[in-house]
Formats: sequence, C-alpha cells, structure tokens
Amino acid sequence: MYVNIAVLKETTLGERRLALVPGVISGLMKLGARLHLEAGAAENLGLSEADFPEVSVIADRAELVADADVVLCVQPPALAVVNAMKPGAVLISYIYADAEPTLVKLLIARRITCFAIEKLPRITRAQSMDALSSQAALAGYSAVMLGAMGLARVLPKVTTAAGTIGPSHVLVMGLGVAGLEALATAHRLGAVTIGYDVRPETREQALSLGATFVDTGVDATGKGGYARALSAEEQAKVAKVLTTHIQAADLIITTAAIPGKPSPKLISSAQVAGMKQGAVIVDLAAGGGGNCDDTVPGETTRVGPVTILAPLNVPSMLAEDASKLYAKNLANLLGLMLHDNILTVDLTDEILSACVLTHDGERMNAPALAAPKTA
Amino acid sequence: MYVNIAVLKETTLGERRLALVPGVISGLMKLGARLHLEAGAAENLGLSEADFPEVSVIADRAELVADADVVLCVQPPALAVVNAMKPGAVLISYIYADAEPTLVKLLIARRITCFAIEKLPRITRAQSMDALSSQAALAGYSAVMLGAMGLARVLPKVTTAAGTIGPSHVLVMGLGVAGLEALATAHRLGAVTIGYDVRPETREQALSLGATFVDTGVDATGKGGYARALSAEEQAKVAKVLTTHIQAADLIITTAAIPGKPSPKLISSAQVAGMKQGAVIVDLAAGGGGNCDDTVPGETTRVGPVTILAPLNVPSMLAEDASKLYAKNLANLLGLMLHDNILTVDLTDEILSACVLTHDGERMNAPALAAPKTA
Repeated sequence: MYVNIAVLKETTLGERRLALVPGVISGLMKLGARLHLEAGAAENLGLSEADFPEVSVIADRAELVADADVVLCVQPPALAVVNAMKPGAVLISYIYADAEPTLVKLLIARRITCFAIEKLPRITRAQSMDALSSQAALAGYSAVMLGAMGLARVLPKVTTAAGTIGPSHVLVMGLGVAGLEALATAHRLGAVTIGYDVRPETREQALSLGATFVDTGVDATGKGGYARALSAEEQAKVAKVLTTHIQAADLIITTAAIPGKPSPKLISSAQVAGMKQGAVIVDLAAGGGGNCDDTVPGETTRVGPVTILAPLNVPSMLAEDASKLYAKNLANLLGLMLHDNILTVDLTDEILSACVLTHDGERMNAPALAAPKTA
Repeated sequence: MYVNIAVLKETTLGERRLALVPGVISGLMKLGARLHLEAGAAENLGLSEADFPEVSVIADRAELVADADVVLCVQPPALAVVNAMKPGAVLISYIYADAEPTLVKLLIARRITCFAIEKLPRITRAQSMDALSSQAALAGYSAVMLGAMGLARVLPKVTTAAGTIGPSHVLVMGLGVAGLEALATAHRLGAVTIGYDVRPETREQALSLGATFVDTGVDATGKGGYARALSAEEQAKVAKVLTTHIQAADLIITTAAIPGKPSPKLISSAQVAGMKQGAVIVDLAAGGGGNCDDTVPGETTRVGPVTILAPLNVPSMLAEDASKLYAKNLANLLGLMLHDNILTVDLTDEILSACVLTHDGERMNAPALAAPKTA
C-alpha cells in the first residue's frame, strides 16, 4: 500500500515556487509516498521531468488529483482541484481562510482534510515545518536587495581616491524572522543598521546582528510570537521616537505583518514627507495593506522625496531556494502523518490540530478561536 | 576676474548622473570659479536649485554655454553645445573619440580644448581625478546587486529549522577596480567568491578580499594597468582552466573591458551551455560588446540554462553617489587649471597632456599614439 501524493503546478500570477523539489523525494518515498507531479510544474524552477526521478508526471490535472491521498501546493488551489479530489483526502497549502470563503466552503462540502500552512503553531516542535518562517527569512534578504537596487546610493562605505561615499543608514521595522534577516543582510553589506520592534526582547537579537535598537519605551509583547495591536496613545508615543530614525534613514524595510489582519501603520504620510531625498521604503507587509500610510500594495510609487516598494510575493523572487525550504517544510509536516506506508491524521497532535482548517465536513479552526478546537 | 563654468543637463537616454554636486561648489569657487547650471539638470538626483546655492541656473542652453570658459558634462555633449561654445573654451567629459568622429571634428573646428576623462593616465598623481576608477567601483557593487536580483537563490548561506540553503558561488572575471569591488561585495554578502584575471599580480588582491584565485598559468600583464590582448593559444589554455570554474558558478560577473577596444571574449557559447541551471552572468563589459559570446549589449537574455544581464550604463543606476565621485574627479582635474581666478591650460603637465583630445584647432591625442604628443 502506498500513499499517493499529488503536487500541483502553481497557476497564481507571479507564483514561481513549487511544493516539491528533488531533494525531498527519497525521504517521502521512504515513508511510503508515491509522488505525482503536474506536467510543467517545475518549469519555473528551470527543472525538467528528468530532475524528478521516480515521480510520475501527469498532464491532466483532474486525473492527477482524483487518486491523490494528499495534494500539495503553495497558493490556495483552484476550486476545480478541490472538486476533483476524493472525499477524505488531505490538502496542504497556504489558504488564508478569511480571503477564501468559497474555497473553505467547498473544502467542507467535499470533506477535505485541509491543513493551512500559515496556521502552523510557533512552537519548537513545529519549527522545521514552519513555512511562514522559512519564506520570511528569504523575504528579509530580498528586501535588502530590492532596497539596494531602488537606492541611487551604495549601502556600504566605499572609499575611492576622490573621497568616500556611504555607508547608508538602514532602518528595519519589525524584527521577526524577515526583519532579522534583513538586518543581518544589510549589516553584511556594510550599511549602518538600526532595528525597531514593539517587543523589547528583540533588542538583544538586533544587537547580536550588529545593529542598534530603537527604544520607544512601549512594550507590545503579544501572543504566539506576534506583536499585539497598540493603543492610539502608544502608537503616538512610538511614532514620535521613530520619526527621527525614519527621517535619518536612507533605506527602511518594514515587516510588521499580523497574519490575517491588516498590517499596523508604522510610518505616516507626514513622516514620509519629512524623509531624506532619494530614500527608499521596502514594505514587506504590503499583503495586509502595508506598514506605511502611502503604501500601494503591489506597486512601486514615488511619494514626495521617497520611493516606496510594496511587492506582494517576495519569496517567489527566490523561487529555487524558497521551493527547497517550502517543500522541506511540507515534507516534515507530512512526516507527522505518514507511518509505515499509511496516512494517519491524528488531530490530537498539537501541530495538526492547530493548522487543520477543515476535516470530515467541518470547519475546524474558526478564526475567532484563539486555541485549537481539539487538543 | 572669474572663470565661468557651465554644467550641462544630461540628455543621453538613461543617463541620470550630473557633473556637479553641491559638495564641490565651495572648493571650485575658492579657485575662482563662477558656476552656472542648466535648468532641470539636478532633477534626476532629486535635487532642486535650492540645493545649489551661489550657482546661477540658466534655462537657455546656448546662453549657458556661450559665456563659459569651461563646460562640464558626463556624456559626450550634443553638437549644438560645441557650436555655442566660445573658441578656446575648455570641455571636460567622457568622449570616446573613436565613436564620436563628428564631435571630434567639430571640437577641432571650433578650437575647443577638450579633455576626454576616459584618457586620464593611470598614475598616482591622477588617481583623485580618475573617473573611470570611481565609476567602476560603483559598477562592481551594482553588478552584485543585479546578479542577486537575477538569481532565484540566495548569495549567503541561510540557515533555517528546515535546513540550510546557499551559499552561492560567485566568479568574478577581470580584477580591475570593478572586479575587486564586486569580489568584496559578494564576499560581504556571504557568497563563496573566486577571482580571475590574466594579470597574476591580482592574485594577492583577490585573496585579501576573501576570495580564491583561478590560476591559469598565463601572464597577460599589459601597459597602463590594463591587460594585454591574449594570443589564440593562450586564450584556449585559459578557457580550459576556466570552464570548470564557469560551470561551478551560480553568478559570474565579467569586467574585462579595454577602453576603446572590443571586449575580450572570456566565456564561449559552449561554456554557457554547460553552466548550472538558473545561473546568472552580469557582463559589465557590454559596452565593448561583452566578455561573453552570448552577450547582447543593453539586453537581458535567457541563453540555455543561464540569464545574461548586459547593462550599458551601470554607474548611472547609483546616480547620486556616482555624481558625487564624478563631480569630485572633475573638480580635482580643474584644480590643475584654476589658479588665482585664472584658467591656465598647461599641456606640459603629464595628466593634461595625456587626456587632452583637441586643442587650438588640432587633434592632440591621436588613437595610434601610445605616448602623449607633448611632454
């Protein structure tokens, strides 16, 4: 007996990642998986069928999905995929249920067991499955590259016989995985780096990466590793301290995203207007509306003295490495369900119970519930 | 008495640099200069007239130039500019005379004293005036940023709970100013770096920047700090050793430009065909046709497994810093001619004699002459 795993070709515009890479094939097969890949799925990675030995490539998507015990993808799948899946099959993907009511309804109707990868709990045992973290690290790196390309000045100090230019000042707001990787990358490149986060425990992490830390005097430690929302008064206090730092920066990278919620506004239009001529903001929280009042999600805009970049799918820019990590995250999650060639979904497992979205015709992980339904 | 210096707005497509920045104004004024700037010239730098105190802004280009003792610009000026200049006035600019026969003819006819900045001798005393070097340093930095954006993988080693990705292997071919800055930048970012140059004395420089060095067994030390052209046999020997390095690289940056001559071909189509899937070549020598057989100057092309970027004006991408250094280079060169509020062109000075292109109705620095005409 084998567990049939189908991997979809991504069809969302701009999505170049893939939920399977050659490196995870043998591991999954040892657990009893038989792998099936949609034809053309690997083209964005520059890979061909020959790079996926022992994986059967199937051109017809409905046929690929019909026999699958597990379907893997990156972006929420098309409704036709769910319609073609067999009842009781497992789907693992980013879902962001609030934005996909029709999809969620169909998953329930079709009795699909859906694990929403963005719901993975931020506990030690789940770290190796945490696609939000792995993709955020890549986004943090790319944000610095995007910023460097957007600036008409260098990040490092460069000395020539005619004099010295640089270094640029880089302010990173929001020191989660993406923010810390951005700080590390900008520091490596030779920029002067300053980190900011409402959670004071991030101070040590910023310092360890060669950055200084903005101390606003407000503690906003929240649940699950995320920052809590700030009161208006707290926001004003923070904004005042931040204004000087914002206006001294050549490059600002903002990363304060709260999954499923609007991104907090950390930079006002007034603060942007007072920024240095030619400065650049890279807003990694554009998916939730952005951390800056002037952010236009998905666009690059010129606002007064500043250029604001607000790309929506930054990890896809590094599709090869992003796919490697994402596929490994999914393989690790599957490791909780694949035993002795059999797929067992144990919803008493705290990881699975936290990220299961639909199961056996029910919505399992309602947005209002802070704690998982089972467990 | 004052020396009137006019600075042109650049009109060449894609040229964002400017031959004057605020930082050099006071120094030039102390030497007796009165500065005049073409209206709108500073817009590409995000600067306004207010940023240029004591500089008169003139909208009419013919009027700006008519009274100028010295005209400064980046790209070779339009013929109309030369026609509007007064006989005996000085022009300082990139010229690349071989590509501008009509311009050179007009400079002679109009009796302009023209200093071609690319002809500056590579001697210690001229280093602070050496725009080729200052702009090359910036190009080397930008080449790494361009390459990083073109790759779908990270340059540094990035460790996540799901495993490690990177580091990428970066091969830099041609270790002049641009190549060394590229090596330094890629090394800072955490890439594994390998340098290659036909001049064996660059080995030490590569090693000092954390790189290893490709030893091909061919010494191609040439005159004036540039590499000499290699024989066919030498080229074959070099190519063989290089093939392994080329095909192990994720990112290759080529910088082997010989001013005024076609760029040597360092990477053949066959070598490109054998490169890693998804690798990137950034060809900084595209202006001379490129170091790679498959380079299409000015274009980004996909050739087999590889993406080749061949931008033509890389320093302009960093227009702010590039202008700072270029303007400073020009101010230093002007320092040789401005004394006590008087402009004196002493063509027995070895720097001026090396880079003077036309003077008093004559072509001074014929392409065939290795040594300067005067001196």
